[in-house]
Amino acid sequence: MRKPRQVRSDIAWATPAKIVVHNLDLCEDIVGRLDLGQMAFLEIFARLPEERELRMFNAMMVVLVEHGVTPSSLATRMTVCGAPEAVQAAIAAGLLSLGSVFVGSIDNAARMLQEALADAPAPADADLDAMAVAIVKDYRARREIVPGIGHPFHKPIDPRTPALFKVAAETGFDGRYVALMNKIGAEAAGAAKRDLPVNVTGAMAAIASEFGLNWRMCRGLAVAARAIGLVGHVMEEMRQPMADEIYFRLEQEASAHLRPQE
Amino acid sequence: MRKPRQVRSDIAWATPAKIVVHNLDLCEDIVGRLDLGQMAFLEIFARLPEERELRMFNAMMVVLVEHGVTPSSLATRMTVCGAPEAVQAAIAAGLLSLGSVFVGSIDNAARMLQEALADAPAPADADLDAMAVAIVKDYRARREIVPGIGHPFHKPIDPRTPALFKVAAETGFDGRYVALMNKIGAEAAGAAKRDLPVNVTGAMAAIASEFGLNWRMCRGLAVAARAIGLVGHVMEEMRQPMADEIYFRLEQEASAHLRPQE
Amino acid sequence: MRKPRQVRSDIAWATPAKIVVHNLDLCEDIVGRLDLGQMAFLEIFARLPEERELRMFNAMMVVLVEHGVTPSSLATRMTVCGAPEAVQAAIAAGLLSLGSVFVGSIDNAARMLQEALADAPAPADADLDAMAVAIVKDYRARREIVPGIGHPFHKPIDPRTPALFKVAAETGFDGRYVALMNKIGAEAAGAAKRDLPVNVTGAMAAIASEFGLNWRMCRGLAVAARAIGLVGHVMEEMRQPMADEIYFRLEQEASAHLRPQE
Amino acid sequence: MRKPRQVRSDIAWATPAKIVVHNLDLCEDIVGRLDLGQMAFLEIFARLPEERELRMFNAMMVVLVEHGVTPSSLATRMTVCGAPEAVQAAIAAGLLSLGSVFVGSIDNAARMLQEALADAPAPADADLDAMAVAIVKDYRARREIVPGIGHPFHKPIDPRTPALFKVAAETGFDGRYVALMNKIGAEAAGAAKRDLPVNVTGAMAAIASEFGLNWRMCRGLAVAARAIGLVGHVMEEMRQPMADEIYFRLEQEASAHLRPQE
Repeated sequence: MRKPRQVRSDIAWATPAKIVVHNLDLCEDIVGRLDLGQMAFLEIFARLPEERELRMFNAMMVVLVEHGVTPSSLATRMTVCGAPEAVQAAIAAGLLSLGSVFVGSIDNAARMLQEALADAPAPADADLDAMAVAIVKDYRARREIVPGIGHPFHKPIDPRTPALFKVAAETGFDGRYVALMNKIGAEAAGAAKRDLPVNVTGAMAAIASEFGLNWRMCRGLAVAARAIGLVGHVMEEMRQPMADEIYFRLEQEASAHLRPQE
Repeated sequence: MRKPRQVRSDIAWATPAKIVVHNLDLCEDIVGRLDLGQMAFLEIFARLPEERELRMFNAMMVVLVEHGVTPSSLATRMTVCGAPEAVQAAIAAGLLSLGSVFVGSIDNAARMLQEALADAPAPADADLDAMAVAIVKDYRARREIVPGIGHPFHKPIDPRTPALFKVAAETGFDGRYVALMNKIGAEAAGAAKRDLPVNVTGAMAAIASEFGLNWRMCRGLAVAARAIGLVGHVMEEMRQPMADEIYFRLEQEASAHLRPQE
Repeated sequence: MRKPRQVRSDIAWATPAKIVVHNLDLCEDIVGRLDLGQMAFLEIFARLPEERELRMFNAMMVVLVEHGVTPSSLATRMTVCGAPEAVQAAIAAGLLSLGSVFVGSIDNAARMLQEALADAPAPADADLDAMAVAIVKDYRARREIVPGIGHPFHKPIDPRTPALFKVAAETGFDGRYVALMNKIGAEAAGAAKRDLPVNVTGAMAAIASEFGLNWRMCRGLAVAARAIGLVGHVMEEMRQPMADEIYFRLEQEASAHLRPQE
Repeated sequence: MRKPRQVRSDIAWATPAKIVVHNLDLCEDIVGRLDLGQMAFLEIFARLPEERELRMFNAMMVVLVEHGVTPSSLATRMTVCGAPEAVQAAIAAGLLSLGSVFVGSIDNAARMLQEALADAPAPADADLDAMAVAIVKDYRARREIVPGIGHPFHKPIDPRTPALFKVAAETGFDGRYVALMNKIGAEAAGAAKRDLPVNVTGAMAAIASEFGLNWRMCRGLAVAARAIGLVGHVMEEMRQPMADEIYFRLEQEASAHLRPQE
């Protein structure tokens, strides 16, 4: 017989008159005092950020909020079309596609970096070079793609990467993870004989690793950021719908070959 | 035969070298320059906020990020337990319960306020009194509860309401919607002969209405805010799980009456 | 202080050697003996069906499994495109749009029927006529559409309705709910001066009411049925994808007006 | 510039008067004629089953419909608590946890079997023995657990496995995949020196492989089956709720250590 274990959460507690989140009084210390970036930092790191941390964190969060018409925003819009009364479901539907193909690669890239550097708190530049060579060789041997580099559309470079790495340099977040990520991109490009610069998920992975975030959680940042962007798509779909037009067109096109010829 | 209509979104566009969101260059104008609160405002209002708008908006967004162990965070934790590799699904699962019982009441309260004031851009105080009387009478006649007032746990008052309304007063967002919401609370309390002060969803509804947000979209703010809070619960569940303990205990308790007595 | 209440579920219990669902031994009485329709009936009614019940129930379940390319199946396909490793998320995404616009109207139609007939276990034909007149008048007075009648595409009649009502007649499920639903369609058509025959959601609502299913749950049947259909769309999207082509086309078209003219 | 590709689905098409699913007329050939198991088979295999196929398929589908109070059904119940009007969201929430820890292991087990037997349509018994040895050795070398064997609760054996394999023997689905799965369990038990019999996900994986189902899709069967079971939990939660009691208790317990001692 299994013994009961205590259930415990360190995040928040409340009385009728008071709500406390990570030791801050919601009504006294948070509402009217903290902005959304600080609040998000508090949720993730259980403490308030320094100014340089907040600037870097905000940059990471804003970069993935919006990317226009994507599978994610289309899933949200399809859901608005059928269930306009359930905005929470429309946003949830759009988040569900943030998996291995798009933003989920943040986790894989962060895992690659964190496992390589786990026992190397202050690697020399030559060590980082050797790690990059070994990592690229390993992925190529397994015929897997190296996560966090290259982009099917944003090429030759993903413009979000230099934008993020510029803020990283200005705020002191350009440490060993960022250096290794860049070296991996260069090494992979050399091996594949084509441009494979670090993409936005590689940049996010490196910076999130500088913050000490466990790789399993990195995709969470992008998911929360995208939830904000999807509110914009729900609003636009309500004002200026596209889902029914899309559905109508595609239904016709997709089944044209099945219909009897008239 | 239906005629094709053009599909159109005004939110964003991209080239390989550039991403533009509401006319701002993501890499030049947003990353490193805007914080998460400004970005969220941009998504929702398609323009950048003034300072007083940003302060009020941040207050509304932070207030619903976190409320500890709730049905929402429990659904997220249950999903982490079964699918720790799909963080997007865990956050989505937690958002799905933000319906009519909890945050969805924001929409109902905002609808009530917006329909009452649709044709009254500058109502006199006496007009607001008359509206409050009529609204409360109407809900009571239909035996429905007036949305946005009273709270089963935070009583006699929901402390989040004065916190939000204080920021509203400081930033000039204490207009006719806030006034009407307060009068409705007072009138309902008089009619029901018990305290029924404005709760956090009533306060959110009033302030979102001051911002001109359509009532159908008000719950969207809370959903995006809660997505941020749920990242914190995913992280804690990974470090310090409670879902399997909960599940084990409840499975035993819930089926005890069905099991043969030994 | 609130007093703890016992948590209780009457559905199932298990020991290491045995799983019991509604008093049937899963491994002895269910696997290899019950088919999927019987199992679904058992879940919903907590007992096994008679033959006529099973035939009617199967007809209701199969009718909404598949309707080709719809907002629901498109949301599923978009999710496969981004998260092919999370099939559960793709199916969930497709279910989320089954709200007020499409299948959710089953609930509204069932509510209309169940509230009308709550106190009339054996209404005379003239009573049903009077109810239909009153209901249609009431909806028209509120300028709301009567649920369960008319269809934007399947006209003049929704072919699924006669198919379901034929089985209902053969199995004895053509009682007062079916009769009232038909009369409401006829009355609404007369009032609106156009064809408004009962659609598939009206037919489902009437038959589910004959089964004694509470209106709040009627949409659940359709949701479970559609989950089965969405497996087919996930499989096809993996073999023969359309999501990336759709996304690419729409991204271009939707933002064409924002792009600088070359 | 990418060239447009045709969007194509072979599943269904419709005219106002007719809906056709995999070449069957929904209203003529399906409603009233096919049961839910046949319909599910049609969706997944694009053809109707033979009798022995249907019996085996039904056994696989019914076995995972229900398992009482689980993380999955708890997530559904939490969602009902907050959004009782959105039954589709409650069912979706419960599906989202069907990931790598619980039913998703079907995919891993099926992949293991399908990759081993890809080039061995008719392996000799000795070949299967050698494969089992090699597979177990390989997993142990990587310190990963072999999928589809052992169970934390259902031990020493998972009773669902013999129940499924009995039907497989009766219907001729006890081929090379079932044989290899059993040999892997025996080999792993020998290596680990404890009982590690095939569990329900291993049995499902083997039988789904006998049906020729690609491993990427195997979890889809379980997801659709569970959607049916979750309807039962939504219904019970509406009649006899447990979510609010659970939430109240856990909120108190989880935050007890944070609260000031009175």
